[in-house]
Amino acid sequence: MTELAEIGLIGLGVMGSNLALNIAEKGSRIAVFNRTPSRTAEFVAEAGALAGNIVGCDTIEAFVAAIRPPRPIIIMIKAGEAVDQQIDALKPLLSGGDIVIDAGNANFRDTIARFDRLKDTGLTFIGMGVSGGEEGARHGPSIMVGGTEQSYQRVEKVLTSISARYEGDPCCAWLGTDGAGHFVKTIHNGIEYADMQMIAEIYGILRDGLGKSAGEIGTIFGGWNKGRLNSYLIEITEKVLAAGDASTGRPIVDVILDRAGQKGTGKWSVIEAQQMGVPATAIEAAVAARSLSSIKAEREAAQAIFGAPDHVFPLEDGAALLKDLELALFAAKIGAYAQGFAVMAEASREFGWSLPMPTIARIWRAGCIIRSQFLDEITKAFTETPDVANLIVTPAFSAMVRESLPALRRIVAAAVTAGIPVPALASALTYFDAYRQARGTANLIQAQRDFFGAHGFDRTDGLDIHHGPWSAGA
Amino acid sequence: MTELAEIGLIGLGVMGSNLALNIAEKGSRIAVFNRTPSRTAEFVAEAGALAGNIVGCDTIEAFVAAIRPPRPIIIMIKAGEAVDQQIDALKPLLSGGDIVIDAGNANFRDTIARFDRLKDTGLTFIGMGVSGGEEGARHGPSIMVGGTEQSYQRVEKVLTSISARYEGDPCCAWLGTDGAGHFVKTIHNGIEYADMQMIAEIYGILRDGLGKSAGEIGTIFGGWNKGRLNSYLIEITEKVLAAGDASTGRPIVDVILDRAGQKGTGKWSVIEAQQMGVPATAIEAAVAARSLSSIKAEREAAQAIFGAPDHVFPLEDGAALLKDLELALFAAKIGAYAQGFAVMAEASREFGWSLPMPTIARIWRAGCIIRSQFLDEITKAFTETPDVANLIVTPAFSAMVRESLPALRRIVAAAVTAGIPVPALASALTYFDAYRQARGTANLIQAQRDFFGAHGFDRTDGLDIHHGPWSAGA
Repeated sequence: MTELAEIGLIGLGVMGSNLALNIAEKGSRIAVFNRTPSRTAEFVAEAGALAGNIVGCDTIEAFVAAIRPPRPIIIMIKAGEAVDQQIDALKPLLSGGDIVIDAGNANFRDTIARFDRLKDTGLTFIGMGVSGGEEGARHGPSIMVGGTEQSYQRVEKVLTSISARYEGDPCCAWLGTDGAGHFVKTIHNGIEYADMQMIAEIYGILRDGLGKSAGEIGTIFGGWNKGRLNSYLIEITEKVLAAGDASTGRPIVDVILDRAGQKGTGKWSVIEAQQMGVPATAIEAAVAARSLSSIKAEREAAQAIFGAPDHVFPLEDGAALLKDLELALFAAKIGAYAQGFAVMAEASREFGWSLPMPTIARIWRAGCIIRSQFLDEITKAFTETPDVANLIVTPAFSAMVRESLPALRRIVAAAVTAGIPVPALASALTYFDAYRQARGTANLIQAQRDFFGAHGFDRTDGLDIHHGPWSAGA
Repeated sequence: MTELAEIGLIGLGVMGSNLALNIAEKGSRIAVFNRTPSRTAEFVAEAGALAGNIVGCDTIEAFVAAIRPPRPIIIMIKAGEAVDQQIDALKPLLSGGDIVIDAGNANFRDTIARFDRLKDTGLTFIGMGVSGGEEGARHGPSIMVGGTEQSYQRVEKVLTSISARYEGDPCCAWLGTDGAGHFVKTIHNGIEYADMQMIAEIYGILRDGLGKSAGEIGTIFGGWNKGRLNSYLIEITEKVLAAGDASTGRPIVDVILDRAGQKGTGKWSVIEAQQMGVPATAIEAAVAARSLSSIKAEREAAQAIFGAPDHVFPLEDGAALLKDLELALFAAKIGAYAQGFAVMAEASREFGWSLPMPTIARIWRAGCIIRSQFLDEITKAFTETPDVANLIVTPAFSAMVRESLPALRRIVAAAVTAGIPVPALASALTYFDAYRQARGTANLIQAQRDFFGAHGFDRTDGLDIHHGPWSAGA
């Protein structure tokens, strides 16, 4: 009898194949199964030297039998109904303690439901968020695990061996029960939307407000990547801006259509923020910007009516302005991350997860799309003050906000004056301004609500009078 | 035997009582029932001369028997499970063709479910949005009806008799099947949130940026109410700003706590917008602003850290600035309404309602909280161009946008410079700027997505190349 595999994986698509190769390469024996057996054979054939650690199985029965109990089985297939069908097919073959791991992009509410459905069967369920795309899956993703802590212990060694590392520290952690991992992955993606949109807005200012070429803008981002904005997204921004198009000889970004796709996780993140009443306006602005990008015909019709904006940028080009743009992007980025972490803090209370904020920031430092040095600073800030109400009031980040916020003000004011759309930058700025305002203007709203609907209000002096003089009850 | 009632109503709370009195006053005989019979007796006793048109019933059986078949029965109780229990209690007593009308603040998805559950019973269900608060219910609300057209015909006469009127035209209409009425009411409330928030932001500029007193600001709003901003919300803004507090002698708004409540419909409206991928950023900003207002302790702590903003407003006080503020509020309002109508247009497609945009604007002109002359202009614009993609590209509104947008730019730029939070005004402005930009910046986002996830892109020149030179597939 051949040696039993440490873990199994179902679904040899791009992500599943890469994850399986990663596991085999890190020294764990892995059993693999695919709906189409020819794909399994092909995969094993192409695995080269790693094939020795891979057990290709043609039947689901052989696959299950090839794994050491309690069996961890990763499912990496299209999110949705197919996952439930796969679980149903597995169930009769599994034994108590076996662990079904959904590594796809599931909505965390589905993950909670699946976790609950398996609870009384003796099997356990893990919802695992995997970020980093193909490259990450193959060489080191960021891994966010939700499920029972006990089930995580069974797979911890394999998962930490394949995850990305930041200065030696694995970017993989157990974050809480049931849907915690997939929830955190959802918010990761929401933050990613905001991060990308803010970069695109700064690009828009450089392109339309300052008339710079793609190459020039790429060089600017390249410079910023050496400073505090250092991150994967800034790094690839430099690269894509520098890339040429073979068929036209032009910069490739200049021939790419300005119509962005989205796959749903950005949307989920803002819907969950809304459900819980946590402001996530910078992320919402980013999701809305993608939607607006997709209605290009409407935008073209509107420009025909209103004319192209003159785009006269009121600030003078030069080193000072470039520094302002860098700082503005940095300040806005803090706002977006602060919102994302605030959404997770509230979800942690609402779903009873005790989400560990420093750990989340820690496992995002490498492997995932938003990986950056910045996340190391967030890790430190949350480690020092784990129960802080908001990232922006931690000592470290409040200092950064104080330093960078004036630049964000100048840039947003200039962009709105010039007619250059900066929805995410502006949302981050107005979020700061509202968040740090002890006395806001909701007193007027409360007065209006009491006037037309007798909704009542509280008073600043605590007096037990809750209606205005306009009210019959006053 | 006494004459049968034309209609029945269950639930004699504030809204139900007022609606019943309104119906009786307009000459329709109405049967009423309340869970606590003593409330029914009290209600009839207090109805005065109107009691002759009211049939108070102590049992649900007597109530049903008192109504002329096919019986329309309005349920006006707390939204949620209680409505289902009430329907279950009614069902065995009703006959084919009877109509159950939920006039509470139901989520339209619940309304769709209730409509579907009654479909095969011979009974029909109407979901009816009622706006206008207590006053409106008593003297003329705006009424948004969803259900079968046939069931509406049975109640049309009563409902149009009690609704508000705009220049003689009743503010009541059938808008589509099942949840159409409650959906439109939800979006009405979302727009109401944005309208109120934008007023509060302008108030904040006048108070914090220009140092004006509540009384002075009230006078300014009073002046604006005579112009194109003329509306119920501006009218009551003037009134609440002018009102004094008896116990302190100060303006009442100055002693009201700046912590606003919300009852859910604003949140529903933005969640539905997100579900459908329609940008509703000004409404989202308003909902978020209420949430931020509610975390006052966090805001106070943040101000202690960052200090109070200096609030040095960069524009000079005077007639020109006041004109700018008026125009800015007007421009932003157009943006919020444009978003709300765009959400309804998409919902109409998604839920198969054929929502009549000119009719919706028409029945909002009076009775409801956002009633205004402005809605008469929207009615005309949608009547002239019913299939237009967006309100802001109609001939009438594009002219208004052209006139007022520069002022909104100046005001937002000044406010963000001064640190005065203007999230809803800024969102409306950036929405315009993105909506009218034929060539946006999503080309960069598509390049990034292709770089890290091989998501692919389209090209401006239509060439069949969908990956960049960084891709293995390129």
